[in-house]
Amino acid sequence: MISMQRTDLAVELREELDTQEMIPGVHVSTKINRDNDMKETRIVIDSKQGADRLGKPMGTYITIESEELRCSDEDYHEPMSESLFRHLREMLGSKRRILIAGLGNRAVTPDALGPLVVDNLYVTRHLIKEQILRCSYEISAVSPGVMAQTGMETQEILLGVIREVKPEVLVVIDALAAGNSNRLNKTIQLADTGIAPGSGVGNHRKAITEETMGVKVIAVGVPTVISVPAIVDDAMDVMLEAFGRNGTRQAMESFTEKERYQLACEMVEPYLANMFVTPKNIDEAIKRISFTISEAINRLQRSYN
Amino acid sequence: MISMQRTDLAVELREELDTQEMIPGVHVSTKINRDNDMKETRIVIDSKQGADRLGKPMGTYITIESEELRCSDEDYHEPMSESLFRHLREMLGSKRRILIAGLGNRAVTPDALGPLVVDNLYVTRHLIKEQILRCSYEISAVSPGVMAQTGMETQEILLGVIREVKPEVLVVIDALAAGNSNRLNKTIQLADTGIAPGSGVGNHRKAITEETMGVKVIAVGVPTVISVPAIVDDAMDVMLEAFGRNGTRQAMESFTEKERYQLACEMVEPYLANMFVTPKNIDEAIKRISFTISEAINRLQRSYN
Amino acid sequence: MISMQRTDLAVELREELDTQEMIPGVHVSTKINRDNDMKETRIVIDSKQGADRLGKPMGTYITIESEELRCSDEDYHEPMSESLFRHLREMLGSKRRILIAGLGNRAVTPDALGPLVVDNLYVTRHLIKEQILRCSYEISAVSPGVMAQTGMETQEILLGVIREVKPEVLVVIDALAAGNSNRLNKTIQLADTGIAPGSGVGNHRKAITEETMGVKVIAVGVPTVISVPAIVDDAMDVMLEAFGRNGTRQAMESFTEKERYQLACEMVEPYLANMFVTPKNIDEAIKRISFTISEAINRLQRSYN
Amino acid sequence: MISMQRTDLAVELREELDTQEMIPGVHVSTKINRDNDMKETRIVIDSKQGADRLGKPMGTYITIESEELRCSDEDYHEPMSESLFRHLREMLGSKRRILIAGLGNRAVTPDALGPLVVDNLYVTRHLIKEQILRCSYEISAVSPGVMAQTGMETQEILLGVIREVKPEVLVVIDALAAGNSNRLNKTIQLADTGIAPGSGVGNHRKAITEETMGVKVIAVGVPTVISVPAIVDDAMDVMLEAFGRNGTRQAMESFTEKERYQLACEMVEPYLANMFVTPKNIDEAIKRISFTISEAINRLQRSYN
Repeated sequence: MISMQRTDLAVELREELDTQEMIPGVHVSTKINRDNDMKETRIVIDSKQGADRLGKPMGTYITIESEELRCSDEDYHEPMSESLFRHLREMLGSKRRILIAGLGNRAVTPDALGPLVVDNLYVTRHLIKEQILRCSYEISAVSPGVMAQTGMETQEILLGVIREVKPEVLVVIDALAAGNSNRLNKTIQLADTGIAPGSGVGNHRKAITEETMGVKVIAVGVPTVISVPAIVDDAMDVMLEAFGRNGTRQAMESFTEKERYQLACEMVEPYLANMFVTPKNIDEAIKRISFTISEAINRLQRSYN
Repeated sequence: MISMQRTDLAVELREELDTQEMIPGVHVSTKINRDNDMKETRIVIDSKQGADRLGKPMGTYITIESEELRCSDEDYHEPMSESLFRHLREMLGSKRRILIAGLGNRAVTPDALGPLVVDNLYVTRHLIKEQILRCSYEISAVSPGVMAQTGMETQEILLGVIREVKPEVLVVIDALAAGNSNRLNKTIQLADTGIAPGSGVGNHRKAITEETMGVKVIAVGVPTVISVPAIVDDAMDVMLEAFGRNGTRQAMESFTEKERYQLACEMVEPYLANMFVTPKNIDEAIKRISFTISEAINRLQRSYN
Repeated sequence: MISMQRTDLAVELREELDTQEMIPGVHVSTKINRDNDMKETRIVIDSKQGADRLGKPMGTYITIESEELRCSDEDYHEPMSESLFRHLREMLGSKRRILIAGLGNRAVTPDALGPLVVDNLYVTRHLIKEQILRCSYEISAVSPGVMAQTGMETQEILLGVIREVKPEVLVVIDALAAGNSNRLNKTIQLADTGIAPGSGVGNHRKAITEETMGVKVIAVGVPTVISVPAIVDDAMDVMLEAFGRNGTRQAMESFTEKERYQLACEMVEPYLANMFVTPKNIDEAIKRISFTISEAINRLQRSYN
Repeated sequence: MISMQRTDLAVELREELDTQEMIPGVHVSTKINRDNDMKETRIVIDSKQGADRLGKPMGTYITIESEELRCSDEDYHEPMSESLFRHLREMLGSKRRILIAGLGNRAVTPDALGPLVVDNLYVTRHLIKEQILRCSYEISAVSPGVMAQTGMETQEILLGVIREVKPEVLVVIDALAAGNSNRLNKTIQLADTGIAPGSGVGNHRKAITEETMGVKVIAVGVPTVISVPAIVDDAMDVMLEAFGRNGTRQAMESFTEKERYQLACEMVEPYLANMFVTPKNIDEAIKRISFTISEAINRLQRSYN
């Protein structure tokens, strides 16, 4: 479900704070693998203070980035898939019965990430129940659609399915918004917090978290769109730079990131607020990344007996 | 969900009984409209004896047939859509909160009927809840997928959604099997019994009925496939005819319809039992008929106020 | 094929000239139908001077606009479809053998307009050739795909097909870019000039015109995206307004529309230049409008004997 | 394009001849790899006599079979993809400029093989032309659709594209019919003869061969359907067996394979002749096999510099 946040990425929120000093309750560690050009960032928020400062709920956010995810050669996805698999397995802990939910609208290309991942999953719950198969993980999967198609909140559908099927953990796959085109379609964010939209601008979809769902919720997301205000905000920077230091620029510089985004939202006409920005080759990007994620999940089945 | 019944059509089961005499507990009435070449058959089964004889649960089965549903000119669908709308409105009675479930596999053309109908529905539940709209019916919709994709029984998903969303009635849209190619893709069956697979040959998906779902269930179905045994059974007739009256033919003629179908099932190798027969232009047929059905349901919204 | 023009709409280019005075060689006439809230604008460019001024080749551009095309109720499409049918029939003149080409990428929602129109066409060429049907128009259709999928220019494929199949006229259906969100998904432009991208910014796809194709080319287009620079350009207006009359604003106001667009292009980072802006409900819009257009073309077949 | 042949597989035609003796002009060699459970059969027809006897044009037919192609674990496709790649590279010889054509109807699941292969190809022609890339093979690709969608013969479209784009070789990917369910969805046939439908029963699509296309044509096919008469034919065997040796059976046994197929065709009603038989899980099979084939072709690009 395409959100209208400035960014859904914890790693971008941290960068925007524009400070080298430590933020209490926010712990960042980074690992770069020179072999495969992959960067993993782990952000742990362990206090309410840290959560407020970053605008994200307490929990662990792992970002896997690779220049190569944009590339079309499949060999490059292998390390990304492997990394996601390892982090996912760690987050799952001892939980074995997993419901995967592919959120978003199958008919809108950049929002189809979740449904496409589900299409390529190797589900096993029915085979295990019928004793056809023995597996380390019992996987079921659903693509609930979006409210304009179903008339129901995604939460209502998921809650109903969870109460009936009783998984131990819900893994939601979703397209995200990034504030910056650099991370578009080449970053995977894994969070043990579920999806808990901030109190900020944009659409107020209800949370999909352990609190609302009754089971642990892990969120896997990829930024596939940029919001229109984020684009305008970026353009303002360039423009102000272009016109030199004058009153306008000084006025702008006194604003916080949040205030500027608010201003950018006001600048674009109301109709634009329901628009998104996405690259022309989004079809190839979505196909490739959804495959990287489904492979990571399918690997769980083969991970041990 | 493509069943492996000889036929899912009550009207074919009645015809196969091959008798003009009245069957106790089975009431048939037929209406032919010469203007638009449409034939409506209403079969009411009102005793257990009738249900056993016909192999279908007690209830009302309405069959709308038209030579023209095969035709590509949209003007011809108008009367069929109108007829389905009227019968559906009558079956719904005073119930207003409807959940539509598009059963079947979106990725297999003749089984995609249900999901395609849902894709074209005008859902209103969320708009009514948010007081954006006032409507005569509150429509929500879901395409639950099939077990090979979800690892869950369709019943589990629907039951979960129903308990959460609490509709007054469930309308399931599904592709059916016909015993005969004459009715393929040009017949709509409407039944107030839900889906209750017989005890016969074939797949034993669990029932989707008022008993299992907790709300009234109306089933709308279109025969889009023929089962392989039904084809073989038909071919046997022609073959026996061709070879004249001899021992083989006499042996065959002593069989009941059910015994013959059983024999045909045994004749085809086990692998074939999971196959179906469908016409080469099934894509056009499915697109057209799904539109006829979605139009009938969308018409409910405009039916009064 | 999503272009990176500021706008592909002649009617917007005319408006941007921001003048009430007559432009030599550019003739504009407008008709508003109060009954169905539909507005038709005919722009005829009949001199090279007019073509240069407007930045569009000489020819006739008909724009059909309706507030209602955004609405989901099918009844509202009827007048739009009827209007497009009439104008198309007029442009076709005595030509009877038509090749329809649905340009664009089926896998990217706002670019799928052309392929979706083709999917719903009632093609007749083969039926007429086999003497199964007598029709007033002989329709064939093709969705050539985009270069990233085929490795070929759209022009190469179309030219090859035209030389083999020898239609009298090529009708190309394509998604367009608008400069303004007001016309998005609710305007149809019909032009007898084919597609001849300006010398401006953006992608330099080669022309699809009578000159390059060897047969008359009619273009039917719907704006489904806004380019990123157009959005930024609009935002600049609002921003300058917001900060009052100062040096920056005065500098901006001395620019022509073209210079400002160039500036906006420079403001957005290179990667953004390959992005587009589209509404979240683009799937519904594209489905509806493609149906409106395919209906208009299918109506040709029924227009007389 | 789903044909109505009894079988499109040379290997089945050879088996049906039901003889151990050598057939003049037909040379068969078989290689079984115990490691990966893969069987390769090479049939070379090098005389007109052999071609007549087998009912296939002169040329080389390579069949790659694997029990494992039905299996969902991707690891098993690796050897099949590798084998297809090697045989394809050998058949291509020194030819470098390849046009891939994905025949068939994207909207009918078992016929979508060709278009799905094309969707996953890494095309390079435009990148090489623009000097962005250096590659060993220059690949372009097209999915021409079927006559019911385009109004044009597939041959007309391909011929037009070939004359414009001038490849050295055309590789057509197509869904085939098998006479027997054993090879369905787990066999790939590679032939250097192109597609040249026999003079037999069924649809008479025109040939796609070097003679008609002007360039060498290689055909890659997978049996995804069984024709209805083939099913009936098989069922007759079982039935005759069941009823013991009598006049009917003796009559049947005096028939040739071809005569029996003709009889089976006559047995099924005319409407059934346009039907096909396919397994319920055809969506998974098609997705998997199309990926195996596209991988084999993509491997060409990486095969040497």
